[in-house]
Amino acid sequence: MTDTADLTATDALAAIRAGRLTAAAYREACLDRIAAREPVIRAFAWFDADLVRRAPAGEGPLAGMPMGVKDVLDTADMPSQYGSPAWAGHRPRSDAACVAAARAAGATIIGKTVTTEFATRHPGPTANPANPKHTPGGSSSGSAAGVAAGFFPVAFGTQTAGSIVRPAAYCGVVGFKPSYGTLHRGGMKVMSESLDTIGVMARSVADCALAMGAMSGLDFGAPDAKAARAPRLALVMGPTADQAAPETVALLERAAEACRRAGATVTPVTLPAVFQAGYDAHPYVMNMESAEALGWELADARAQISGVLQERLDWGRSQPRGTLVEARAAFAAARAALPAAIEGFDAVLCPSAPGEAPEGLGWTGDPAFNSLWTLLHGPCVTVPAGAGPKGLPLGVQLAGRIGDDAAVLGWARWVQAAL
Amino acid sequence: MTDTADLTATDALAAIRAGRLTAAAYREACLDRIAAREPVIRAFAWFDADLVRRAPAGEGPLAGMPMGVKDVLDTADMPSQYGSPAWAGHRPRSDAACVAAARAAGATIIGKTVTTEFATRHPGPTANPANPKHTPGGSSSGSAAGVAAGFFPVAFGTQTAGSIVRPAAYCGVVGFKPSYGTLHRGGMKVMSESLDTIGVMARSVADCALAMGAMSGLDFGAPDAKAARAPRLALVMGPTADQAAPETVALLERAAEACRRAGATVTPVTLPAVFQAGYDAHPYVMNMESAEALGWELADARAQISGVLQERLDWGRSQPRGTLVEARAAFAAARAALPAAIEGFDAVLCPSAPGEAPEGLGWTGDPAFNSLWTLLHGPCVTVPAGAGPKGLPLGVQLAGRIGDDAAVLGWARWVQAAL
Repeated sequence: MTDTADLTATDALAAIRAGRLTAAAYREACLDRIAAREPVIRAFAWFDADLVRRAPAGEGPLAGMPMGVKDVLDTADMPSQYGSPAWAGHRPRSDAACVAAARAAGATIIGKTVTTEFATRHPGPTANPANPKHTPGGSSSGSAAGVAAGFFPVAFGTQTAGSIVRPAAYCGVVGFKPSYGTLHRGGMKVMSESLDTIGVMARSVADCALAMGAMSGLDFGAPDAKAARAPRLALVMGPTADQAAPETVALLERAAEACRRAGATVTPVTLPAVFQAGYDAHPYVMNMESAEALGWELADARAQISGVLQERLDWGRSQPRGTLVEARAAFAAARAALPAAIEGFDAVLCPSAPGEAPEGLGWTGDPAFNSLWTLLHGPCVTVPAGAGPKGLPLGVQLAGRIGDDAAVLGWARWVQAAL
Repeated sequence: MTDTADLTATDALAAIRAGRLTAAAYREACLDRIAAREPVIRAFAWFDADLVRRAPAGEGPLAGMPMGVKDVLDTADMPSQYGSPAWAGHRPRSDAACVAAARAAGATIIGKTVTTEFATRHPGPTANPANPKHTPGGSSSGSAAGVAAGFFPVAFGTQTAGSIVRPAAYCGVVGFKPSYGTLHRGGMKVMSESLDTIGVMARSVADCALAMGAMSGLDFGAPDAKAARAPRLALVMGPTADQAAPETVALLERAAEACRRAGATVTPVTLPAVFQAGYDAHPYVMNMESAEALGWELADARAQISGVLQERLDWGRSQPRGTLVEARAAFAAARAALPAAIEGFDAVLCPSAPGEAPEGLGWTGDPAFNSLWTLLHGPCVTVPAGAGPKGLPLGVQLAGRIGDDAAVLGWARWVQAAL
């Protein structure tokens, strides 16, 4: 029998509604798990069990659901420190818009989860629950690790390059980046306005749909919906195909074969050059916009910025400004080209990450297989798909057109079942 | 001879560079003007002359330039209260990205200027310098009035519907909303992510170009550039043509005639229905996104929200959520249609506002002639163009395609000269 802390939110909330579980008992199961494993996992940037216990009982579709909040999102009752010593002890007056939406839907905020520095590269202390010698990925490190460890069933993540999908894959959970702009970024420490997207991580696709639906009011699909037919999938290795580790190449072959056996068509698709150009433009937009975002920190708190981030920001500021306009235009061209490039397909099947989570906590891994899908602004979701040579989790990614969120989640569930 | 406080920034900074004026004397002239007129104008949400005098001498292209900052933009050294009692006394840790950019370029922040409540409808106390019985317009009320009164040569404004162009026109100054996304919104109290755009107000087109160029690193045109030819202008009254007061109809006829005399072609253009659909979608996007943005305020500080804003937000929250997706699609369709609709034209000539500034301080006027250009995401600029029947300032607006910022500013200068 599944330990209460490992229930999906969908199952736990159903048990609460049926009277088989109380919200308090569910919360205590999560708090017990945190007490047991947090000393090793270190998923939290801030956590106070007493505050969680004092939280009012929520009302709405997420009533009783514990939720982790990545520490680039403001909370009125907890510090918000953005993974940076420049913001140590910062106490915002308000909740971020998405946090307010979660609370309005009934969720209980469990704590603030570790982010890399401003959701960029410099890591926090979080370890991978599957093997604490390995990174959980980043930048949504604590959210991914906490969901995997049973600290909370659902957590907020944010993605500028691969900050939701990659750590979710590394930790063996589901990570969902919805279409750009789905959740309002008010009260988020935004770095790249053109890219930053708020999403969720959970232990099932249905939980992602539940949380996103409750917060946005949009329909992300019913947890028990059955597809009327098998999908037509475009298998896209993309501009970074050569960065796929052998276990990832094998995984995609295995996934394609399993989908075909279950009735899907899976067709390798080579993207035209406009996607390579969009991909190549990503570091310019990300780093140039991030350098604008951190203008105050660069001027007044530079010594508190890590060396690796200083270098990135200085690089961003040293580019001719017209480059940013051109890079955004390259994004727009790639976006405009996607519908034709995958015409006739229901969704894209692609790697979630180059391979297993790298060893060590000093590097959160490479977003090579994520930044293209982030800049294309459509939905993407990673689902767990077995393990690699070191026994660490792997994931496969489904991606789609802007607005195809419910469909992509549905096909992700279908692919997961086929695997 | 022009009083020092009424110099354009371009002229004042040239005088400083030439040794004919000191930055301190320029600043004192502005402070003297504030002391003389602020009791009636009430442009400031926060102002401390001593803090201004203690500000370090800036370096860069805006060194010595006093600047007003609309109070929806965070400042590390001044309160940021967003025009709302819910945020009374709020002290952010950091500067907004655009404020950091202004300081990095050498500007001296003079104070925080009055905004309507969260840059929406409920007005602040600011009066119109041309006649204090009349509104200065809004939501960038204090920035427009302060520029007109000589408190500072340049100020930040923000626009979601008509919050830069309308108050600038009402106060007889230049207001420039650049292409969407030109200045980073980090540290702004963003309401509508799809619409909110940071821009500037000044007493000349050249000053807008100077400030925008210095802050963004992009080229907004040289102050003394001469056009090689006269423009081809599309005269667009747009979906709200019937809301133009007689003085506005007469003004546009006069402007068109003056432009023709100066060699321009001015061709009335009727926009196709897709623009009406975009215009009709504006209140949905603005109010639905604003209700998300203010999720915390609605939950925890509702009593401190004005009745008029509560009504708007409740309306936004009561709409089916799919409406927002459809409304954004209507925006995208209108945006995509603009290049074809004005093909062969250099820019659009259109009204800045229905007429003169309304009497009374309870209503900041109607953005009827602004929200279309805001949602189209291209640049728009209003330039002073005479006075109406009550002797209050009027403006005419030039608008253009996304990215045509320098060209639109250039043609605005050309039109101003022709008038």
